Amino acid sequence: MTLPDPTARAKASHYRNSSVSAVSRELPEETAVAMVYNGSTQAVMMATPADLEDFGYGFSLTEGIVDHPDQIASSEVIAHPKGLEVQMWLAEDRAEAISARRRAMAGPVGCGLCGIDSLDQAVRDLPDLSNLGPGLTVAEISGATDALRAWQPLHDRSRAVHAAGFLMPGHGILMAREDVGRHNALDKLIGAMARQGVDAGQGMFVLTSRVSVEMVQKSAMAGCAVLVAVSAPTLHALRLAEQAGITLAAFARGDGFDLFSHPHRLSDRISDVA
Amino acid sequence: MTLPDPTARAKASHYRNSSVSAVSRELPEETAVAMVYNGSTQAVMMATPADLEDFGYGFSLTEGIVDHPDQIASSEVIAHPKGLEVQMWLAEDRAEAISARRRAMAGPVGCGLCGIDSLDQAVRDLPDLSNLGPGLTVAEISGATDALRAWQPLHDRSRAVHAAGFLMPGHGILMAREDVGRHNALDKLIGAMARQGVDAGQGMFVLTSRVSVEMVQKSAMAGCAVLVAVSAPTLHALRLAEQAGITLAAFARGDGFDLFSHPHRLSDRISDVA
Repeated sequence: MTLPDPTARAKASHYRNSSVSAVSRELPEETAVAMVYNGSTQAVMMATPADLEDFGYGFSLTEGIVDHPDQIASSEVIAHPKGLEVQMWLAEDRAEAISARRRAMAGPVGCGLCGIDSLDQAVRDLPDLSNLGPGLTVAEISGATDALRAWQPLHDRSRAVHAAGFLMPGHGILMAREDVGRHNALDKLIGAMARQGVDAGQGMFVLTSRVSVEMVQKSAMAGCAVLVAVSAPTLHALRLAEQAGITLAAFARGDGFDLFSHPHRLSDRISDVA
Repeated sequence: MTLPDPTARAKASHYRNSSVSAVSRELPEETAVAMVYNGSTQAVMMATPADLEDFGYGFSLTEGIVDHPDQIASSEVIAHPKGLEVQMWLAEDRAEAISARRRAMAGPVGCGLCGIDSLDQAVRDLPDLSNLGPGLTVAEISGATDALRAWQPLHDRSRAVHAAGFLMPGHGILMAREDVGRHNALDKLIGAMARQGVDAGQGMFVLTSRVSVEMVQKSAMAGCAVLVAVSAPTLHALRLAEQAGITLAAFARGDGFDLFSHPHRLSDRISDVA
């Protein structure tokens, strides 16, 4: 099927000093996307209408609905008057599991923890990745967010779109996905990698955004032990990264970065100037 | 009760060029917050642990759980090992209504549409504010985001925290609230205004963030007909603003702005230079 354009132009009046001019701005689209398993809607999120099957696979993996992409027997994107559906059919054993644990899930742009109905569910236990993950150099982390810039065509057109990329040490960015929601961008990336058999444990996720709790949860669920982000982490996200054995670098903007957790993966020997 | 600090310091290693130094960064906290009505959890969101009763009132109003603050008979914030609860008790007639329409709602930082389990619910009908709202001048819109800067103490300390403020023409910013999630900041503002009896129809909401669908929905539910934001709107948000009669100004950064919808509230006579 044909998806809506992920960006399009809108007319505006640009006011500056004491004058006004007619302008046209390329803006990101935002569409309600339903995740539907075996005919039942599990979650609805506002998202960029692109790479929706990747989104479906990634969401299913990071929410623990499946633990391997093979458990999704088939998937299809269907248009509705009010949005899009990612219809997924689960392998038989998994279908039984989901009907037992099904819960109403929901969320808009930027939504990572969906359908949580208790504090216990919001702060779920994560796998410990302490002994996984690649060796890294300072230069690889320093250059990661600049490298991602070449993989952001929607952002180049419309601004205000987040990206998540996967960087393999020695090979640069292997793939990236974009979305108006930072959680969706990461889910799309994780889904694309799973569908193509790329092992998240061999590299790092590179994010244009802040690092909130859900970004760490998704990385841990995907088995990626290194997170590099342009903006700040929250304290809670930092605690989770420490617990899950994830190396977290933030404020990464080309000329440097702050390393907040698990420096053991860094192979450089750099003298401490402080 | 004593809430966690909304920001605190964390240690990091700052890498720059070929050197490393020990640094301390003030980061925003992020806590799971449950909205609990008459003893039942309705939603859990990740949020900044501050102004939580405002958050409860605003969330209740923008989600349509109540349509007047008096319908919340009492509220209290309770600490739990894994987060915080905003416990609200509804007036009797409203309690019956909510038990009939109760649904599981959820969301993390940045979550505005909570517990939606169908595409229909995600794209709900909004009130038409075309005939409401204040008259505005270009100077008031131009200066709005700069004026909000003085109301962002958490952002000054920790970066990466959003703010939503209420600007009354002729009176400047009357109040503002901050949160790691932009939707939460707006809900907190709407709740604070409702508790203090400030009519949202008399001014404009000023946002440090992008304008996504949920920001327009919340503004419409609160009866505020003017939205001014630092960053971009999505196309979907723009369509909703047009339908709901909301004047939407974006890319508002002190020296100018783009006006996308309902210019009729602007009282200036400015010559068109385009």
